[in-house]
Amino acid sequence: MIEVTYRFPAGVDAEKQAQVIAVGQTAGSWGAQFKHREQQLRAHLGQVLRVESLDGGGAIAHIAFPEANVEGDIGSLLTMIFGKYSLGGPARVMAVDLPATYGTPAKFGITGLRRLTGVQGRPLFMGIFKPALGLSAADHATLLEQVAAAGLDIIKDDEILGDLPEAPTLERVRACRRVLDAAKQRSGKEMLYAVNLTGRGDRLNANARRLMEAGANALLFNVFSYGFAALEGLAADPAIHVPVFTHPALAGALGGAADGTSDYGIDYAVLLGTLMRHAGADAVLHPAHYGSLPFARETEFRIRDILHGAAPEVMPVPSAGMHPGVVGRVWRDYGDDVVINAGTAIFDHPLGPTQGALAFFQAWDLVRRGVPLTVRNCTEEALQTALQKWGGET
Amino acid sequence: MIEVTYRFPAGVDAEKQAQVIAVGQTAGSWGAQFKHREQQLRAHLGQVLRVESLDGGGAIAHIAFPEANVEGDIGSLLTMIFGKYSLGGPARVMAVDLPATYGTPAKFGITGLRRLTGVQGRPLFMGIFKPALGLSAADHATLLEQVAAAGLDIIKDDEILGDLPEAPTLERVRACRRVLDAAKQRSGKEMLYAVNLTGRGDRLNANARRLMEAGANALLFNVFSYGFAALEGLAADPAIHVPVFTHPALAGALGGAADGTSDYGIDYAVLLGTLMRHAGADAVLHPAHYGSLPFARETEFRIRDILHGAAPEVMPVPSAGMHPGVVGRVWRDYGDDVVINAGTAIFDHPLGPTQGALAFFQAWDLVRRGVPLTVRNCTEEALQTALQKWGGET
Repeated sequence: MIEVTYRFPAGVDAEKQAQVIAVGQTAGSWGAQFKHREQQLRAHLGQVLRVESLDGGGAIAHIAFPEANVEGDIGSLLTMIFGKYSLGGPARVMAVDLPATYGTPAKFGITGLRRLTGVQGRPLFMGIFKPALGLSAADHATLLEQVAAAGLDIIKDDEILGDLPEAPTLERVRACRRVLDAAKQRSGKEMLYAVNLTGRGDRLNANARRLMEAGANALLFNVFSYGFAALEGLAADPAIHVPVFTHPALAGALGGAADGTSDYGIDYAVLLGTLMRHAGADAVLHPAHYGSLPFARETEFRIRDILHGAAPEVMPVPSAGMHPGVVGRVWRDYGDDVVINAGTAIFDHPLGPTQGALAFFQAWDLVRRGVPLTVRNCTEEALQTALQKWGGET
Repeated sequence: MIEVTYRFPAGVDAEKQAQVIAVGQTAGSWGAQFKHREQQLRAHLGQVLRVESLDGGGAIAHIAFPEANVEGDIGSLLTMIFGKYSLGGPARVMAVDLPATYGTPAKFGITGLRRLTGVQGRPLFMGIFKPALGLSAADHATLLEQVAAAGLDIIKDDEILGDLPEAPTLERVRACRRVLDAAKQRSGKEMLYAVNLTGRGDRLNANARRLMEAGANALLFNVFSYGFAALEGLAADPAIHVPVFTHPALAGALGGAADGTSDYGIDYAVLLGTLMRHAGADAVLHPAHYGSLPFARETEFRIRDILHGAAPEVMPVPSAGMHPGVVGRVWRDYGDDVVINAGTAIFDHPLGPTQGALAFFQAWDLVRRGVPLTVRNCTEEALQTALQKWGGET
């Protein structure tokens, strides 16, 4: 059984609309000529479990859908739970409760990412190549050398950087692979580079294989721009044997207001938690409530709890405006199983990218010893500079 | 150049946010160390063309993006125009102005659908199998026989009907193909059956080929559940030589309020007009403003104008709650180049599906002669019954 929770604003007859969903999004109605198919037709009907009024107006409806109506994937699930009805008036999908094995499991998840990077017992630190667009493959390799020198765990493309004639993704991977190999020679540690996978739907898996053959050891994927069906296609394909980091680009077009109060769309905990988990994401980028994007603390924590919820655990990657000063906050919110992901704080660090990356490790060193992240508490220049520029703890 | 129009509600500093989009969704900012790349980086920046205040508060911003930032497809386009910024606060994409050849053109469109069906000089009439779920392949074949007997032009699956173990899509296609062949023997006319294409992203094109080999001569596709990248993959693949009818399921999660007043998301004219047109849809189902779903007249007409706008013209398919009584209205709104699409009005017609389908042709016969669709004006029992049940013109 698939249980979906819908929220209706004040003024909507929630009891009636819940029935419209339970029937209209499943078998619909039928006439006397289908009397002989009564049993089969009934087996496909949804069922309103309960409708609860909300303080301050509006209501929540819980509806059960038969698993037999869908194909065990996200594409058919989305059509069933909110297909035509999304056009039917104000209603928001608040939660989707799926059987544990529904969909496509992550190939790596938290355990796999720790195995690949060899990092245990602390958060992972990730950088985002900046500037986003306009650099050559050689430029990327140079930037990568600078952060690899600091022992950064992961790097990723900016989500905006596609496969452009003047900067082909394949060339970038080849140039960066040489840097990853050199870093591994030195440190014995494999740094991951999540390269942005783009392209036509029918070519995505072949594009991913080509990038892997050129040395890509992780992928970045804009799920909302390309579709959950594409993410599942990657996650289910045994030939794609690298972790997939998913980016929340475009999620706001479905999720609406950052505090989750929109009357339409799909809640962020479903978009960035439930659906990602069941579509096979290994690590999920999402806004942090203390970052540069507006985002509700409670929503972020629901995403975290869904991703951390059950095996295979998926890695949360709170993002946007992260800097060394928040490392303690992130660790207290997430524990060790989190990726801390920064672009500007690394690549625009006044002392350069190497020091920008080092500042995160210096921050972690204070945090793990229980020392507050203040300029006064630190002796390292890279961290001091970062805390002065982006702020620390008080 | 790609010009995108954004709407901000009152209270947002539109000038500032437009700059955030133009810069943050493109190259971003860079430091002195990239002085030598200044020219390349600048070439990737977006540009605020103008910001206009709206009566009643809020503002419209027009932003130009370099075509060099994207891959000529919808996936990379969506990431650029509204990726991260969709999470940045209230903003709605109102229009996207693309170069005429951007994306993937329709293989068939209006001209191709007329060639395939052999129907000229009038709207096409399409039915939707009802009930949606729970019938056998043989049941579908029986229903198809009933509407083929009336000379219906097109039939489609309900969008909710996937490829289920108890009712495999392939069996349904095989059973229905026999009916289509028999009908063609009688009438000389090829009826189209748009079968619902579903499945994992990396298998969609192979699934489509398998359905075609079994006799499918058209596809139905839930673009918003599976992704525009998948639609482009179908449209660009020369092995997929049947028209694709796109369904608007889930579009409301992105489009919000039916009158287009939501402060978030993407406007319906972009979702169901511009993006469909440039992703290769041959026919686009969308709500009608006088149907059973709430929808703004002005939005419907913008969709129509975009689909009819330039070669290859794409077929609009106003849907949901259509019945013979609206045939005149639809024709006056669209002219001949429209598909009139009905489920209930055909399959729940009191005299059965054959008469349900015939009633549409009887309605058309009055409309083309300029006779209002009233019970009094018609002598045919099927149309009379339909007008009595669902209403006509006054």
